[in-house]
Amino acid sequence: MTGLTHFDAEGAAHMVDVSAKADSKRVAVATGWVKMSTETLAIIESGTAAKGDVIGVARLAGIMGAKRTSDLIPLCHPLPIAKVAVELEADDALPGLRVTATVATTGKTGVEMEALTAVSTACLTVYDMAKAVQKDMEIGGLRLLSKTGGKSGDWKAPAP
Amino acid sequence: MTGLTHFDAEGAAHMVDVSAKADSKRVAVATGWVKMSTETLAIIESGTAAKGDVIGVARLAGIMGAKRTSDLIPLCHPLPIAKVAVELEADDALPGLRVTATVATTGKTGVEMEALTAVSTACLTVYDMAKAVQKDMEIGGLRLLSKTGGKSGDWKAPAP
Amino acid sequence: MTGLTHFDAEGAAHMVDVSAKADSKRVAVATGWVKMSTETLAIIESGTAAKGDVIGVARLAGIMGAKRTSDLIPLCHPLPIAKVAVELEADDALPGLRVTATVATTGKTGVEMEALTAVSTACLTVYDMAKAVQKDMEIGGLRLLSKTGGKSGDWKAPAP
Amino acid sequence: MTGLTHFDAEGAAHMVDVSAKADSKRVAVATGWVKMSTETLAIIESGTAAKGDVIGVARLAGIMGAKRTSDLIPLCHPLPIAKVAVELEADDALPGLRVTATVATTGKTGVEMEALTAVSTACLTVYDMAKAVQKDMEIGGLRLLSKTGGKSGDWKAPAP
Amino acid sequence: MTGLTHFDAEGAAHMVDVSAKADSKRVAVATGWVKMSTETLAIIESGTAAKGDVIGVARLAGIMGAKRTSDLIPLCHPLPIAKVAVELEADDALPGLRVTATVATTGKTGVEMEALTAVSTACLTVYDMAKAVQKDMEIGGLRLLSKTGGKSGDWKAPAP
Amino acid sequence: MTGLTHFDAEGAAHMVDVSAKADSKRVAVATGWVKMSTETLAIIESGTAAKGDVIGVARLAGIMGAKRTSDLIPLCHPLPIAKVAVELEADDALPGLRVTATVATTGKTGVEMEALTAVSTACLTVYDMAKAVQKDMEIGGLRLLSKTGGKSGDWKAPAP
Repeated sequence: MTGLTHFDAEGAAHMVDVSAKADSKRVAVATGWVKMSTETLAIIESGTAAKGDVIGVARLAGIMGAKRTSDLIPLCHPLPIAKVAVELEADDALPGLRVTATVATTGKTGVEMEALTAVSTACLTVYDMAKAVQKDMEIGGLRLLSKTGGKSGDWKAPAP
Repeated sequence: MTGLTHFDAEGAAHMVDVSAKADSKRVAVATGWVKMSTETLAIIESGTAAKGDVIGVARLAGIMGAKRTSDLIPLCHPLPIAKVAVELEADDALPGLRVTATVATTGKTGVEMEALTAVSTACLTVYDMAKAVQKDMEIGGLRLLSKTGGKSGDWKAPAP
Repeated sequence: MTGLTHFDAEGAAHMVDVSAKADSKRVAVATGWVKMSTETLAIIESGTAAKGDVIGVARLAGIMGAKRTSDLIPLCHPLPIAKVAVELEADDALPGLRVTATVATTGKTGVEMEALTAVSTACLTVYDMAKAVQKDMEIGGLRLLSKTGGKSGDWKAPAP
Repeated sequence: MTGLTHFDAEGAAHMVDVSAKADSKRVAVATGWVKMSTETLAIIESGTAAKGDVIGVARLAGIMGAKRTSDLIPLCHPLPIAKVAVELEADDALPGLRVTATVATTGKTGVEMEALTAVSTACLTVYDMAKAVQKDMEIGGLRLLSKTGGKSGDWKAPAP
Repeated sequence: MTGLTHFDAEGAAHMVDVSAKADSKRVAVATGWVKMSTETLAIIESGTAAKGDVIGVARLAGIMGAKRTSDLIPLCHPLPIAKVAVELEADDALPGLRVTATVATTGKTGVEMEALTAVSTACLTVYDMAKAVQKDMEIGGLRLLSKTGGKSGDWKAPAP
Repeated sequence: MTGLTHFDAEGAAHMVDVSAKADSKRVAVATGWVKMSTETLAIIESGTAAKGDVIGVARLAGIMGAKRTSDLIPLCHPLPIAKVAVELEADDALPGLRVTATVATTGKTGVEMEALTAVSTACLTVYDMAKAVQKDMEIGGLRLLSKTGGKSGDWKAPAP
């Protein structure tokens, strides 16, 4: 047994049967960052305060991206997403933007992929909007912070 | 002037006018990785050889993800994508999988976002398929390697 | 407090958490119209009776549009829509077509946006199909007629 | 002859053949409004200045909606949209928000439907975000202001 | 009465109201085939074993296609799909590939269309991947094998 | 060499590079049928004439389905479709409905898959609308009739 539940006994990919699972409240939190130069970060921060709201656009893209998760990830179940919140904050030490997404549902499977897709889409949108001033930004640190609910129980990421 | 071309003079987000640009061949290459334990990597590698083709599924998800780029990234132009290739290879030193995507078009804007979205979608799909055995995998190193074509000319990432 | 529930305390847009709400039957009815010349209306009416069913195409577009609501409206929850009906009828006094959409679900949030999106998509489709004969048609009167169900209770539009 | 080009000689709906048309620059401008109480407008205006950027969210929704036009309108051709700009401004006399969208392409058919869909989606999004404070807002005045380019030439709306 | 439930008493198409139905477990199984030359089948079979996994790609396309059913079929309800499995096997007697899809949900309507759409999408994908070597392949035998659950009860296809 | 162009030399699936191909007019015609009982066909035919236009709904679904082809078929290029026509006609000998779709583009690749997807979506929609009266309908005979244009030249199906 490989433990890869997305494949059946013959190794064929399938969407796992969750029809017998009970609906329960599930929450997942994921994070990631976009690393950039101090100059690019300053442009984004000044823009947000006045003109050119990179952070507002990226937040909305992340929220909408969460709703497209089952379209993008082949074996992901479509889910009635009940909440999406995406935060972006400047981190001068990175330097860059740190993104955190929280997704909740009352359903039969978890929303880990929805939270990760929200973060990823928000980071890609930041890259898109700032690439005219810096092309060598890097997206990284994309990982699950926690999940709660469901049969497998709660999980919290170890300190990085 | 902030240099953020996705905002107009009043700071309002817009999709930049490219109608006067000539169609030209454009190629972009992006990369990224999924870091995991040696055990998870071994499961994926054995699965690909025999049963449970994680890499094949992730490659296809990356290709299809490139086609959804303008749906996901708010200010991205829809483009007639002419080529998408996504490579995944195991790297024991990471340990994990390294992903590289090459996207080409003959169009009025570049395909940097399509290449980055392909890599990001492939990485997320790897995470989805292996999360039953390891939840603390990390996605990172997502960046543009090169772009060619278009008025702004060719660009190559500096050595990391 | 602004009362705008789609923003959190810091003013950031978010998709409101409805995971704690109970599933209940909810119905929304919306209306709108396309105003056109008497000649255009006559063409549409004769077409529907014989050849060129503008009303049939617009009705179907409205039904399918309701299913795309959460894709289009950034902070709208995806919902398992249980019913969509779209009616179009000629109004010689307008002159033009009046559109009414009824949407129902058993879910955690209302279907006001689904009903309004159905009407809007049907009206846009009428415009598309008749614009070869008249470009200065106008779409208007798009508003909610009633909603029932949910914690906030029933609501009925005041007489216009 | 009815003049309804979206139907063939037998009255069957079809997507008109534009393959023989030359690519040319085409621009369309459309407008519409959301009528609301003075109180709701004040909340939106104060929100935009400080917290809760209804106008920013609606603008982005309008831009993204333009890209979904051929998904929503059954007989509309998919087009490589080259530009989308959506403006929203408060009008105390309405009272409410006036929305204007400008869409451009270099293609074989016009972008009237894309401009109208952008306005419609932005208006629906305003409704969604403000409906917690006022349910009887009305969307109207949705019409084409002008189109340029293409074989049928330029067109400008008569004064309303 | 025609018995066509997708039309109301006036003959207008509508999405049938299922809001009063109870959620129950429902399963549907559908099948179909792609007929091809012995040579084409041999190429596909050798490819799957070594290079060029036509069957793996088609299986994934079928699974993802099931999730797009309510986007494609106008009057189909969106459903929280709980399971999709798609099998493809070579049949030397056909000669060609036989496809079977099983879809499950816990919902208010059946998943017959989802199972048929999965089979259809998998067959079309096989055609796409092999059309460079044979253009006159044929897709056929697409039918429902069984459905279980729901008020109308279980159904099993008669022997063909 | 297998001749399967959707795989590279290592057997990995990719979207073939068409960026160097010239834009040219391309047309594809595909066909298929839905076999049903004489009673079901009679219901559909009477419905179309008076109430319940199954054929009109299926035609529109086929046209819209053609536009979703590159979303559904993993390695299919997105294309600016220039024309879609879908015909359905009753065949008492089948008995059932015969569907023919014609798709045209001016682009870098052919529209065979778009024509086949249009037929398939129209057939599935007929099944959906009539399944309340007959569940054992069968979809078959889905094949390419002809293609013209492109480097590989014209092709016409042999007589069946």
